[in-house]
Amino acid sequence: MPIQIKAGPAGQLIGYPALHRFCMAALRRVGLSARDARMGADVLATTEAWGVHTHGSKLLRGYLRRLIAGGLDPRGRPRMAAEGGAWGLVDADNSLGMIGSAFAMDVAIRKARAQGIAYIGVRNSCHFGAAGYYAWMAARQGLIGLVMANDMPSVAAPGSRGAITGSNPIAYAVPAGRQPAVMLDISIATVAGGKVFAARDRGEPIPEGWLIGLDSRPTTDTSLFPAQAALTPAAGHKGYGIALLIEFLAGVLPGAAVASGVGSWLGSEPALPTGHGGAFVAIDIVSMMPEGAFERRVDALIDEIHAAPVAPGAERILVPGELEWERHRQAMADGIALPPDVVASLREAASMVDLDIETQLA
Amino acid sequence: MPIQIKAGPAGQLIGYPALHRFCMAALRRVGLSARDARMGADVLATTEAWGVHTHGSKLLRGYLRRLIAGGLDPRGRPRMAAEGGAWGLVDADNSLGMIGSAFAMDVAIRKARAQGIAYIGVRNSCHFGAAGYYAWMAARQGLIGLVMANDMPSVAAPGSRGAITGSNPIAYAVPAGRQPAVMLDISIATVAGGKVFAARDRGEPIPEGWLIGLDSRPTTDTSLFPAQAALTPAAGHKGYGIALLIEFLAGVLPGAAVASGVGSWLGSEPALPTGHGGAFVAIDIVSMMPEGAFERRVDALIDEIHAAPVAPGAERILVPGELEWERHRQAMADGIALPPDVVASLREAASMVDLDIETQLA
Repeated sequence: MPIQIKAGPAGQLIGYPALHRFCMAALRRVGLSARDARMGADVLATTEAWGVHTHGSKLLRGYLRRLIAGGLDPRGRPRMAAEGGAWGLVDADNSLGMIGSAFAMDVAIRKARAQGIAYIGVRNSCHFGAAGYYAWMAARQGLIGLVMANDMPSVAAPGSRGAITGSNPIAYAVPAGRQPAVMLDISIATVAGGKVFAARDRGEPIPEGWLIGLDSRPTTDTSLFPAQAALTPAAGHKGYGIALLIEFLAGVLPGAAVASGVGSWLGSEPALPTGHGGAFVAIDIVSMMPEGAFERRVDALIDEIHAAPVAPGAERILVPGELEWERHRQAMADGIALPPDVVASLREAASMVDLDIETQLA
Repeated sequence: MPIQIKAGPAGQLIGYPALHRFCMAALRRVGLSARDARMGADVLATTEAWGVHTHGSKLLRGYLRRLIAGGLDPRGRPRMAAEGGAWGLVDADNSLGMIGSAFAMDVAIRKARAQGIAYIGVRNSCHFGAAGYYAWMAARQGLIGLVMANDMPSVAAPGSRGAITGSNPIAYAVPAGRQPAVMLDISIATVAGGKVFAARDRGEPIPEGWLIGLDSRPTTDTSLFPAQAALTPAAGHKGYGIALLIEFLAGVLPGAAVASGVGSWLGSEPALPTGHGGAFVAIDIVSMMPEGAFERRVDALIDEIHAAPVAPGAERILVPGELEWERHRQAMADGIALPPDVVASLREAASMVDLDIETQLA
């Protein structure tokens, strides 16, 4: 079969298996084991199928850069640095962010099944793609998943002249019965930095309110970010406060780098580790409720939301993750519509590891 | 000593012990044990000392109303309904919200010390005052505390014509070393409903953006809330998404009432229980780090924030809870400045239980 990338108004269509194969092949080329490369490809291709193009395979290029330069170790092996009944600390050994993160959530799930809940902190990690993927790892096994990570400062605090906290993601996933898992994956900034980069790459304007310059005034100049402008915190002190909670649980407690100590996975010297941290929590439902009862209660809540009166001009009231699962179904059936900036990034990734993208994607 | 309430530009000054004594006496009058009444008074007076007047002793009147009418049981006894290694479910037995909540956090702390982390869900509870108090219970014992609660729908979702979720509070507290505990207590709404009530009671205007009417347009008419207007979610879909996380952990999982099933602690029939739920999580630091290491890392992060460049026009960059602890110190030294609406509410509470407020506060 020839290449699956087709030009179209919605971008280019590519099959999930082809995209997964390409990501896996690229990661293999820089020295990852088949198992680790598959894990990385799972996260990137699934995120793409959810339609979250800012956090999918576009990131591959940056990961390859660090894997080649040595800041990420292609053969890094996450290990338990310390553990107890319902907790553990993972040293991710500078492996690709997905490897230590999936390892941590697997341990969290295992411990939560025994104890009801478990917390796993991760250090010596790096940017891990979409936090929601790891939360969903728990939900697809019937547990509640909660994921946080810290990052280099890129978000202002109320009263600050520049960035104070990372755009620290927080994600959760909750299993439902008839309905797909409820799933939220957000940055504590008004918008994630990836959206600013995507707008810049696509030549699209951004609204006022996303960025503030060093003069503490709003700016819409995407070229200023991140050096000369900071993201605004979502809902002011509320987003800032949650950013710090994430810093405590994903940075301070795991012994990871904190605040200005965290490297930029895109901007800092690619031969050096970034020191990112993460927090992975799983909660076991069947410990606490008769089988199926929780999921029925989740379905009832979703039904109540779907049946509520809709605002004039709005089509419907969505549950977090609903849109992503609809896109996922369509992506698996028809292929994924990749925006041009993602396609360009994949072509660069291919050339970095000397892969023929047309052949690999076929 | 005569009454401590003094008129002044900042309101009326009252000593913490006098306020505590009054709250405790009022709760004793409606049948609470000395221990339970002291717990309730601790929460209300501490919140007042933090300067969070919307969630302090102003609430006493409403609690007394339900305790007298029977919706809250003055002799209710929280008990473990189910438990395992790092989890538990508490049936709060329709006791005053503070009683089941403090009981739950005590259990969470005990279990976390053994297992590293613990989750306690609560059902058959009610409005519990300031969520931050219970988070601080953990922090003052050297653990990280995380608290959530659900509430009757009062907050719109993106695309909804009315309220979908509660204004669901989330609070955390983290122990520091040289610094006071970091402490955040927020509603997932742009502002908590209590701030709308306070503005109404004080005859103050509210800005556009807090409320939307049933026509889905912004309104500044506080008299419309909650029947004819809903609070807006903080940061749109982000606040809505966190509201649902809280609903899952504090309502669905503990087996508490959910969404429209939750009664209004102020507005619904006071002889009936409201069915509120809560979630109480404690994380034990000394399980995971050498003693003092975590607190030093928290201090270093706070120092970094305090040393960061300040925006033009801003005085300083605050850490969550910093202002509350400054107010607390001042309140303990000089007394608490009560806004007029709080004083009026305390006078009503006094008359409900036939207490002489001037004598009781002396």
